[in-house]
Amino acid sequence: ANIVLLPGDGIGPEVVSAAVQVLEAVGQHYDHKFVFTEYLIGGSAIDKTGNPLPEETLQACRSADAVLLGAVGGPKWDDPRASVRPEQGLLGLRKGLGVFANLRPVRVHPALIEASPIKSDRLLGVDLIVVRELTGGLYFGQPKKRDWVDGQQRAVDTLEYTENEIERIVDLAFRLARQRRRKVSSVDKANVLESSRLWREVANRVAQRYPDVTLEHVLVDTAAMRLVSVPQSFDVIVTENMFGDILTDEAAVLAGSMGMLPSASLNGQYGGLYEPIHGSAPDIAGQGIANPIGTILSAAMLLRYSLGLEQEARAIEKAVDQAITEGARTRDLGGSLTTTAMTQAIIERLD
Amino acid sequence: ANIVLLPGDGIGPEVVSAAVQVLEAVGQHYDHKFVFTEYLIGGSAIDKTGNPLPEETLQACRSADAVLLGAVGGPKWDDPRASVRPEQGLLGLRKGLGVFANLRPVRVHPALIEASPIKSDRLLGVDLIVVRELTGGLYFGQPKKRDWVDGQQRAVDTLEYTENEIERIVDLAFRLARQRRRKVSSVDKANVLESSRLWREVANRVAQRYPDVTLEHVLVDTAAMRLVSVPQSFDVIVTENMFGDILTDEAAVLAGSMGMLPSASLNGQYGGLYEPIHGSAPDIAGQGIANPIGTILSAAMLLRYSLGLEQEARAIEKAVDQAITEGARTRDLGGSLTTTAMTQAIIERLD
Ligand SMILES: CC(C)[C@H](C(=O)O)[C@@H](O)C(=O)O
Ligand SMILES: CC(C)[C@H](C(=O)O)[C@@H](O)C(=O)O
Repeated sequence: ANIVLLPGDGIGPEVVSAAVQVLEAVGQHYDHKFVFTEYLIGGSAIDKTGNPLPEETLQACRSADAVLLGAVGGPKWDDPRASVRPEQGLLGLRKGLGVFANLRPVRVHPALIEASPIKSDRLLGVDLIVVRELTGGLYFGQPKKRDWVDGQQRAVDTLEYTENEIERIVDLAFRLARQRRRKVSSVDKANVLESSRLWREVANRVAQRYPDVTLEHVLVDTAAMRLVSVPQSFDVIVTENMFGDILTDEAAVLAGSMGMLPSASLNGQYGGLYEPIHGSAPDIAGQGIANPIGTILSAAMLLRYSLGLEQEARAIEKAVDQAITEGARTRDLGGSLTTTAMTQAIIERLD
Repeated sequence: ANIVLLPGDGIGPEVVSAAVQVLEAVGQHYDHKFVFTEYLIGGSAIDKTGNPLPEETLQACRSADAVLLGAVGGPKWDDPRASVRPEQGLLGLRKGLGVFANLRPVRVHPALIEASPIKSDRLLGVDLIVVRELTGGLYFGQPKKRDWVDGQQRAVDTLEYTENEIERIVDLAFRLARQRRRKVSSVDKANVLESSRLWREVANRVAQRYPDVTLEHVLVDTAAMRLVSVPQSFDVIVTENMFGDILTDEAAVLAGSMGMLPSASLNGQYGGLYEPIHGSAPDIAGQGIANPIGTILSAAMLLRYSLGLEQEARAIEKAVDQAITEGARTRDLGGSLTTTAMTQAIIERLD
């Protein structure tokens, strides 16, 4: 299998290299050959080519079996008036691959409940997945512009969704729910947004095809509250791009650290894009102390969804679980393991 | 002073009547005459007049010294395809009064730390205020519409801000910060939104006028995480309308219940609009068990900001604090007091 690596910026290269070591160990163990090729994206691509998503990168990703990405961005490229920004590389890639479905599972490891700011009775048994729409909404809607009104600047972003865009993501959420606890929570702001009212109509329509799955509509403000106060009440959450961005970072708190959470971005056409949900963490970049688990678990999702290697995916997940159970902790989890040591701890537990 | 009451829907009438009792007790105690007149808004206004914001209501609010509102909305009016909705009454009122600054203070009462899903070490000393922009952004931007594209429906909402709109709300946040711990956290999504990039530029400009106040920029996803994991790191949070909506509901978890939090919506021209941040809670409406504290503390803010009665405002806040300290609890706080009993407990402690 042909896997494109996009290390990107900040801690990106460190965590991607950790995940590659794990994939290589799995490859040896199960006798698979993974071919890795590395391309530029984000700030480091801007530095070398002036373009956050060089054409070569996009082409390589389109013909790969799967793409594993680290993170993009950092203070070096943070001038809000700059005309090219690292994030354009990531957003262009998501759009260019058409990966409209971003899956962000949140499981709480029992051994990490102590580390979480949430009380343990709220965390026991939390096992939810956010299905975030990834190629529409405020991120891509046009116009996105500045103009002048009455002698002052005005900035405009556009939140737009078509029925098709809503239908395909909600349908995917329902299909997932069937393999889980059969409950879909559709998050919107239908009391204010026209796009949310369309979202709700389409969700109701899709729900009729899944009489065995329960659908509830939750306003985004209520969802932000429930996610912390009664997280066990969620199974599959489906929502639009920006709400999904906010809610998944909030949900990361449940898992004890942003560093823990993986994601898969899929569409069924290209190979799929896999990335941890954390950012480039410029404050700790280059120190070898980043938590590689989010990226390693993303690699497991890659095996599952793009290569159909379920057993191998589980082997990684089990090894991570076991390492955590046996006390392996990077700094963000209150421990002192380096990225390399944590990766080693996981590889040793592969079987 | 001339105070307009807008009880609205669900538990709205119950909590507004509780706050009026407290205001009357304060009036007697300090020898002020408050004149209350009641008007229709929301679902109950739709039922009686077909209009969620009758012209009469808006006119009365415009000439009042202050407006105290309960809540609007409920399942009865929840059809997403309905052409009039209760929320239009609230949004029309905010816009009609031009109250662009929504202040939502979040303090954590030490005696309620037990009731919160957040661990106590994270909650000790939390004292933040969210300054939410209330008359712009996705709530009001045009176009907000449906149309047809390639044979399918499309829905559009518009997020727009002008420099002036940003400047006045950020400036207010800085002025507030001067009376507090001198730190402003401006929340945006500048790596994706054009409106956020303008927001950030204007915030930086305003900051130059307040060299004694620290400004930090926080991405909204990071803010949603920090609000739960390190809430003590915030003093004044300033943000646009939708982000403020989401973050304040999330922040309500810190205080132990949505029922605790008040808000004031100001502009300096009209008298100001005061409402609890919770909704109409149709599930418990009419049962006499709603927590009236959010509305009672909103009445305290009314005394402070619209009537200049600081001492009286503090008397209410102190009475609420004391009632909580001495164990008064409605259902949402794990107790069994009715709305009336909680209100009585507070009135008895006024001095
Ligand atoms: C880096 C940024 C553009 C991105 C997003 O907002 O989607 C990130 O926050 C994420 O959640 O993957
Ligand atoms: C009822 C609704 C329109 C309102 C809002 O979104 O502003 C509410 O959630 C609030 O926070 O006051």
